[in-house]
Amino acid sequence: MSTYKEIVLVNRPKNGQIGAYLFQEQQKNIPTAGEGEILIKQTHMSLDPAMLGWMSEDRGSYIPPVELGEVMRSSGVGEVIESNHADFSVGDKVMGMTGWREYLLSDGKGFNKLPPGVNEEMALCVFALPGLTATTGLYHFGKPKAGETLIVTGAAGSVGSIVGQMAKADGLRVIGVVGSDDKADWIVNELGFDGAINYKSDNLAEQLKALTPDRIDIFFENTGGPIQQLIFNRMNTHGRIVVCGMIADYQSSNPAPGPNWIPLIKKRITIQGFAMPDHWHEIPQLLEKLTPYVKAGKIKYRAHVVEGLSNAQEGLNMLFEGKNTGKMIVKL
Amino acid sequence: MSTYKEIVLVNRPKNGQIGAYLFQEQQKNIPTAGEGEILIKQTHMSLDPAMLGWMSEDRGSYIPPVELGEVMRSSGVGEVIESNHADFSVGDKVMGMTGWREYLLSDGKGFNKLPPGVNEEMALCVFALPGLTATTGLYHFGKPKAGETLIVTGAAGSVGSIVGQMAKADGLRVIGVVGSDDKADWIVNELGFDGAINYKSDNLAEQLKALTPDRIDIFFENTGGPIQQLIFNRMNTHGRIVVCGMIADYQSSNPAPGPNWIPLIKKRITIQGFAMPDHWHEIPQLLEKLTPYVKAGKIKYRAHVVEGLSNAQEGLNMLFEGKNTGKMIVKL
Repeated sequence: MSTYKEIVLVNRPKNGQIGAYLFQEQQKNIPTAGEGEILIKQTHMSLDPAMLGWMSEDRGSYIPPVELGEVMRSSGVGEVIESNHADFSVGDKVMGMTGWREYLLSDGKGFNKLPPGVNEEMALCVFALPGLTATTGLYHFGKPKAGETLIVTGAAGSVGSIVGQMAKADGLRVIGVVGSDDKADWIVNELGFDGAINYKSDNLAEQLKALTPDRIDIFFENTGGPIQQLIFNRMNTHGRIVVCGMIADYQSSNPAPGPNWIPLIKKRITIQGFAMPDHWHEIPQLLEKLTPYVKAGKIKYRAHVVEGLSNAQEGLNMLFEGKNTGKMIVKL
Repeated sequence: MSTYKEIVLVNRPKNGQIGAYLFQEQQKNIPTAGEGEILIKQTHMSLDPAMLGWMSEDRGSYIPPVELGEVMRSSGVGEVIESNHADFSVGDKVMGMTGWREYLLSDGKGFNKLPPGVNEEMALCVFALPGLTATTGLYHFGKPKAGETLIVTGAAGSVGSIVGQMAKADGLRVIGVVGSDDKADWIVNELGFDGAINYKSDNLAEQLKALTPDRIDIFFENTGGPIQQLIFNRMNTHGRIVVCGMIADYQSSNPAPGPNWIPLIKKRITIQGFAMPDHWHEIPQLLEKLTPYVKAGKIKYRAHVVEGLSNAQEGLNMLFEGKNTGKMIVKL
């Protein structure tokens, strides 16, 4: 009987630090699919900013944390290698919540086959959490109108890059905030954003002013950090702020305060936080909205692949240090 | 020919300070109503927190400031003493934007007769800006549901007291934040709030916890100040924060920062700023919503009356110092 590798969570992050101390690898025997079950061999696993929350102590977040001793949570794509389930055949490529492991059994619930023409990387980069999150945030809450100006932080990230490209396709002026000149170059010259700001550069306020002559109607927030206040200061009347992520603050035990609320009244601004578990039931409609943009070639993506489950922790570290150059994927 | 008194704005507030230096009294000849006009003798004038913004330099607020040399802006009630207008008769009591003056001419636009059974104080305390603002904020944005918990700051104020009473009538648990024990006593023992917190007392966090055992679903913000963060910390999932006023910060040149946005994501919270000029066109529907509460005796109010136009500035000062014991009204 052969074995497979899985990684369990054994500690909670101290001061938000990702490290080897959090995880333990173990070997398990590869199981056999029972009645109504499928055996999945995972081939591509997604690494996401939300994982820090999933590992941390329960602070009333939207889904309970991973218990200590449990396999670390993740989404991924795998191949069905045994099936006792009417809806799945051996060879099917399926996507769902896989966890940090090479093999898993499932009763099929929550797993969907990849649509024709969609490969594993595209599935995880566009049709999984990133694209669903971008679509929900932009259309449920951002309510974009042609001619408006949208600014998105984490603009080269998995969500931000899709938000910006969809808004651009809809006729908005789109500015992205990123953390490197390489990323700035990519979003402007490859993705077609109207401008980019490297938040590590000087004169952020001046750059922002120059790039948003009509100020800002939609602020899609993925990061937090000091540029938040500057963007907030440039919001237009009836502006919409969609709070999707605050990765710059997730690792801080004492996150920086936010803007004073007076401008919310003067400009009648909405700030809306959201998280995907509220929207799982809308996935068919979200995919219906998203897919035409992909088919029309409007959505480019970049995967940053690390090889082997044992390198997942290192990949996660890169994500939090902003060293990734695309959606983080572990190839198993 | 007899004369009347009016007060014009001659300076902009320095560091948000209200004082005699802002205004100048002048005498004018009482005019005569021309074709299509009415001459109104103002009897009751409203003083509102928004006035500080109206006097201040234009910072992109929702209505332009009062120009220097112009009569200070206000709403009020007056009696028609001459009419060349088909819709108004001598003796009619009318409400509208009157300004700081004893007499004014109008073409009738923006002036409405008081409904039967509504006296001048009730008109300004309930059916004018306070009630319209409370109704808009609570029902458009707060979306109250029976059984939920609402907390309102400035709870003894003109807007806050109506918000709390409507929410209470709708079956919510209602807690008010006030600045004196007298006000706390009034909202609990007269208005029927479930609890009150004097923000000047100690142990605010403990008091808040004890009074909101099921945490907070709706936070109706009229004041700002340090208790904002404590209330924010106790918001429930899918909570709604309605930002109506920030009177504690209006006089500050460097207002305190607000809460970090991470909890907005974890709890999917909405923060919505609003101002009434966006909602003038909804006044008939707002009155339709508000009036049954008043008719059912659910809305008590307290006016704080100062006598004479020359005391308007002193009344405004009391409002910003929280020394008023009800809706500030100048009786002319």
